Amino acid sequence: MTVPFPLSTYTARLDAVAALLGQQHIDAAVLTPGADLRFLLASDIDTHERFSALVITPTTRRIVVPAVDAGALRDGIAGQAGVQVVPWTDGQDALELAVGDIHRHAADATVAVSGEMPANHLLNLQARGLRTVNATAVLRDVFMVKDASEIAELRRAGAAIDEVHRQVPGLLRAGRTEREVAGDLEKLILAGHVAVDFIIVGSGPHGADPHHDYSDRILEEGDIVVIDIGGALDSGYHSDCTRTYIVGPVDAARPDQAEAYRVLRRAQQAGLDAAKPGITAGALDTIVRDIIVDAGYGRFYTHRTGHGIGLSGHEEPFIIAGNELTLEEGMTFSVEPGIYVPGDWGARIEDIVVLTADGCEPLNVTTRDLVAAGAGEGS
Amino acid sequence: MTVPFPLSTYTARLDAVAALLGQQHIDAAVLTPGADLRFLLASDIDTHERFSALVITPTTRRIVVPAVDAGALRDGIAGQAGVQVVPWTDGQDALELAVGDIHRHAADATVAVSGEMPANHLLNLQARGLRTVNATAVLRDVFMVKDASEIAELRRAGAAIDEVHRQVPGLLRAGRTEREVAGDLEKLILAGHVAVDFIIVGSGPHGADPHHDYSDRILEEGDIVVIDIGGALDSGYHSDCTRTYIVGPVDAARPDQAEAYRVLRRAQQAGLDAAKPGITAGALDTIVRDIIVDAGYGRFYTHRTGHGIGLSGHEEPFIIAGNELTLEEGMTFSVEPGIYVPGDWGARIEDIVVLTADGCEPLNVTTRDLVAAGAGEGS
Repeated sequence: MTVPFPLSTYTARLDAVAALLGQQHIDAAVLTPGADLRFLLASDIDTHERFSALVITPTTRRIVVPAVDAGALRDGIAGQAGVQVVPWTDGQDALELAVGDIHRHAADATVAVSGEMPANHLLNLQARGLRTVNATAVLRDVFMVKDASEIAELRRAGAAIDEVHRQVPGLLRAGRTEREVAGDLEKLILAGHVAVDFIIVGSGPHGADPHHDYSDRILEEGDIVVIDIGGALDSGYHSDCTRTYIVGPVDAARPDQAEAYRVLRRAQQAGLDAAKPGITAGALDTIVRDIIVDAGYGRFYTHRTGHGIGLSGHEEPFIIAGNELTLEEGMTFSVEPGIYVPGDWGARIEDIVVLTADGCEPLNVTTRDLVAAGAGEGS
Repeated sequence: MTVPFPLSTYTARLDAVAALLGQQHIDAAVLTPGADLRFLLASDIDTHERFSALVITPTTRRIVVPAVDAGALRDGIAGQAGVQVVPWTDGQDALELAVGDIHRHAADATVAVSGEMPANHLLNLQARGLRTVNATAVLRDVFMVKDASEIAELRRAGAAIDEVHRQVPGLLRAGRTEREVAGDLEKLILAGHVAVDFIIVGSGPHGADPHHDYSDRILEEGDIVVIDIGGALDSGYHSDCTRTYIVGPVDAARPDQAEAYRVLRRAQQAGLDAAKPGITAGALDTIVRDIIVDAGYGRFYTHRTGHGIGLSGHEEPFIIAGNELTLEEGMTFSVEPGIYVPGDWGARIEDIVVLTADGCEPLNVTTRDLVAAGAGEGS
């Protein structure tokens, strides 16, 4: 990955983690490669099963990594921000290098670990007597609330994926396969991103499977087609947007489809209207879901309303029943209800939004209506 | 992934896990998507942050998955093998469905968890009062010792990657870039695999970085080039093989390079000779390493000697200093010493081997000597 922000952004983030640890009387954060290190060090090292960890205490910062990865870290943000790079070679006790002094200082020390840390490493940390808590919860204010520079990147990602959606009507024609369309989408996504995260071309009955990707099914006139696409920018931030199309004119949709889509559109808009600081994630899910349930489509809405997005494609806050998390200004997540009639058809509308002081700003702005596609039918 | 083996293979594996749990007085195994589920259910479901787990007790088997994934499991090995498929939808307590009855049955129950399970889920399991141990250790005899059908797949993977190496001499010519070579290698790997795992084209000084992939560096006459490549078969089993080439005739290598390569060749052969049941992983590492150290190149051999391979590319047994694990017949792993002179050049020789009753069978069989490459120089 490139380093998207100035050094001061990263030192501020590291300082914020240290401050939160102090406030919550947690002895250290032990953070493993993945979204946490992309966020704090602009590092996407992947040391596979080898232990690596950024260890932050209220007063110290070090990163313990296999020796072969040490150079890249010294040359990068870690070195520039004064994080001590501690290389280990095979046969050395990497965990001792990471947490030995913390443990010696307080036998019952508590450390906050990355939610992504694999059990292989976590069980070894615990075997040393360390108490462990989830860093995602403890460091919520740093990880979940995006600052202006992050929001700018997510806005750029949203614009990039919107540009792809604008070209979808020209791709969906009767006689083409989902796979052919996906091939075109891959090229279009890569024109504005450095990587494709996923491509869903769910035509006709395949639209009813939220986990479908694409197949050799041939598009037919009148098919409703769910296009859910996302990619990653060189800065590491992700896009994710769903629109639903019809092969042919919009009035070719069956009356039951048109009616269901109107309900879905209303539910998604209600989500956009209700997304603001102070509401809980669970309550936002309920507002969207109730509209679909009250219209009689409840059994066809089988998933949560949304997920956070940033340096990972799926992260807190999850907009899901029972989540008592209160949403705050600067949080970024999807609002993406769907209606799925098994074996028949499906539809979904998804925007990424960022919470503002008194509402939300959608980062995807193409029309949320059902879009006509096919030769000469470009929206 | 396809289902590579008959149903009876999977039922036997599930039975073996249940028997091991009983023997070790462990109440349940809680296994998450990844290599464990590929092995036990021929399933490569990826439910991202959503909790999924195959729960095996000495007397019951169930898999708890998001509802959208339930159909594929019922239709697959899980359903055929009588594993109860328990779908959950958002708002339900998936962990309760997975382990609630185990916990009620014994408040201090111990469960063995996948080494890959993320902390997000593991911490939640522990918060319910369950004791957790690492399933990789507990179920070693099932996961680490490969049966004949698995060895056949790894042999097939070895043959597929050998076929690529046979074509490398024709790809390495002065004037081409590492990236161009990597592009050719990608096509060749995909001719015999369904996926590329990694491609390393380490020419000249880049050969000294074991983690290099490839760059725009232009190959020059006399370059030593490390080619480390691997892929996955449709059955999910992996290949991984390194050979070292020279752009030009073998006698164009500098005397110091030729001498170092002879030492490396001897060390790797010593590893092949010493790999047999009864030796510990650490002792095998030492045998290989000592030859390199005794010849004065110790500071240039910066990584472990090998790693296990199977349904994941890196797994136990790790052939590394201090690993007291005794190797057994049927274990499969790499023997891959290297010599890396920073900023100058490097070399590595890697074979996958399977332990037989009294030695090992290398699954890669192309010459381990330095191979001449370049126009008209094919080996």
